[in-house]
Amino acid sequence: MTKLNSETNFNILTTHKKARTGLLTTNRGNISTPAFMPVGTKASVKGLSSEDLTNEVEAEIILANTYHLNIRPGEDVIKNLGGLHKFMNWPYPILTDSGGFQVFSLSKLNKITDDGVKFRSHLDGDECFFSPEKSMEIQMDLGADIIMAFDVCPPYPCSDKEMKKAMQLTHDWLKRCKKTMTSKNSQLFGIIQGGLDEKLRLESIEKVCAEDLPGYALGGFSVGEPMDLMYKVLDKIACHMPDNKPRYLMGVGSPKDLIESIDKGIDMFDCVYPSRNARNATLFTQKGKINIKRAEFKQDIKPIDSSCDCLTCANYTRAYLRHLYSQKEPLFVRLATIHNLRFYSNLMKKSRTAIEEGDWDKFKQECLEFF
Amino acid sequence: MTKLNSETNFNILTTHKKARTGLLTTNRGNISTPAFMPVGTKASVKGLSSEDLTNEVEAEIILANTYHLNIRPGEDVIKNLGGLHKFMNWPYPILTDSGGFQVFSLSKLNKITDDGVKFRSHLDGDECFFSPEKSMEIQMDLGADIIMAFDVCPPYPCSDKEMKKAMQLTHDWLKRCKKTMTSKNSQLFGIIQGGLDEKLRLESIEKVCAEDLPGYALGGFSVGEPMDLMYKVLDKIACHMPDNKPRYLMGVGSPKDLIESIDKGIDMFDCVYPSRNARNATLFTQKGKINIKRAEFKQDIKPIDSSCDCLTCANYTRAYLRHLYSQKEPLFVRLATIHNLRFYSNLMKKSRTAIEEGDWDKFKQECLEFF
Repeated sequence: MTKLNSETNFNILTTHKKARTGLLTTNRGNISTPAFMPVGTKASVKGLSSEDLTNEVEAEIILANTYHLNIRPGEDVIKNLGGLHKFMNWPYPILTDSGGFQVFSLSKLNKITDDGVKFRSHLDGDECFFSPEKSMEIQMDLGADIIMAFDVCPPYPCSDKEMKKAMQLTHDWLKRCKKTMTSKNSQLFGIIQGGLDEKLRLESIEKVCAEDLPGYALGGFSVGEPMDLMYKVLDKIACHMPDNKPRYLMGVGSPKDLIESIDKGIDMFDCVYPSRNARNATLFTQKGKINIKRAEFKQDIKPIDSSCDCLTCANYTRAYLRHLYSQKEPLFVRLATIHNLRFYSNLMKKSRTAIEEGDWDKFKQECLEFF
Repeated sequence: MTKLNSETNFNILTTHKKARTGLLTTNRGNISTPAFMPVGTKASVKGLSSEDLTNEVEAEIILANTYHLNIRPGEDVIKNLGGLHKFMNWPYPILTDSGGFQVFSLSKLNKITDDGVKFRSHLDGDECFFSPEKSMEIQMDLGADIIMAFDVCPPYPCSDKEMKKAMQLTHDWLKRCKKTMTSKNSQLFGIIQGGLDEKLRLESIEKVCAEDLPGYALGGFSVGEPMDLMYKVLDKIACHMPDNKPRYLMGVGSPKDLIESIDKGIDMFDCVYPSRNARNATLFTQKGKINIKRAEFKQDIKPIDSSCDCLTCANYTRAYLRHLYSQKEPLFVRLATIHNLRFYSNLMKKSRTAIEEGDWDKFKQECLEFF
């Protein structure tokens, strides 16, 4: 394995206005951007094996959650077993979030100090403490290829004072993360906060990007605000993030969110949206979402989407999927998730092609007609 | 497709004492016996796709349930959609049970008359009626390759009078089944009753086999009786079933049950035992069962069974499987079921080899050491 160089881990291949395609390099494989990362919260993308992720979803990178893996089975266990890649038999890149978002959204009684965050586990109420140092150590123990900085993710809405405080702590903690993150095989991405305030966001971009890291993420979006507001802010700020570094919009989103964000210059996404929707019977097609529960599909011998090339669409009908869902058959989760995640992979692939071929505006408009 | 001939649908290949290997022929493929049929109650072997059944389990035939499919989605729906094979995308043989067992064990308020059985669906309490004719019609609508006669399956224990009445009705109904089952592409198997009474069983064998059908099943075993009693009765009666027809022991069983029954001359089995055990964390190895929940497996990097050639053992550790189970990750069901059903496939394959090579007694003894 060669040592990573933050100057060359990302190359822009083509641009069309603000939209761009690129190639992100890691020691475990390359990622074509724009890219969507399926979420494997507890070291498993719900219902899918690692073979499914490679062969059926064609994922090049997945995300796992520091907060959850710290609680169960513990990063010590995973480290002893040879790291997260070996644990889940996934040899390709893994990005771990820092636990910041979960500490604020899932845990109980979180108390923030300059040092870190005290909280109680959502699982058993055990008292825990995460600091920038602790988060880096866990992520290094897991063996992540991309390690996220430990940030403060304020709720929406929040006061100006609260937002500024969160931003300041995020910036201070980033320096501590950078100092602690000593793994030569991992890349540290900084997280930009600032909510919907363009001025704060630009200030955060300046502070975070001054650290000269291999990538930068926008945190604190998609936390309850109207998405049109997010698009508006993204349009103003994403282009101020360094051109030569990947731009990752955390926790986003719907097909529409992805298209709108690529349009504004975003390169990477993660979200439970496609997999959670799959489990709840909402499936994506070229012409929008369908709810497979509906009676109209009872005798429908068509695949979910006749233009889709996934295993599910190649082999199973809407009628069978509806039957599996309504009978609570466990096969449903796998077949539905394979389809929705392949839909997302294909959406990214088509976006890259459209940008490369100068067809982005037309492609974007066609997509937004149905989403 | 060629017309089936009840004289040639089954060929014995080798015998060793009472044990035997054979080849059962259907229009949708051949089945090497002894064979185990995974149970796809509601048109799905829980957690597995049809590709999994072919590629990972190497199943040559599966079983589906007339009672469940009649209730949801209804045989009319499945017929309209092109039959059960097309519905679940399984092109190989399917055996459907007749609904007899479920009508007696699952439904509420069943009332038996000479005509048939009135009962209320376990799902919504709807009043239903199954007769020999109705059962044949449903199974033909489903398009099963092997259709089971509609029988009366008495509970254990039951009075001599009740048993004789059940047997008599089963024999009477078989004639009506035979008359109604007009599909040229399906084979009707008769069901022998008589409980643990050897004399009644022999009488039932005589009556049922007088109908000259392509196969015969033993019903009414594994309904709560001590298994040693079943082995004892099997040893006395199985050899009195026609040599040149497949002998199917319904709803059996554990690895030990299978080995003991093959030893007595049985050719076919079905049971939820391996798949249900998988879902409940009990996994089979060459050296007996393990409960993957146990703390001892938390850091165990070995596969479930290092001699197993299944997808799960090739790719995942006990530690990861334990994590998936304890975190209720849906991937667990698929990986565990693939392993247990492959274990059963391999047990049948090894049994056939042992019989062919004259090693049966040794093989049997080795198996029974751990089960």
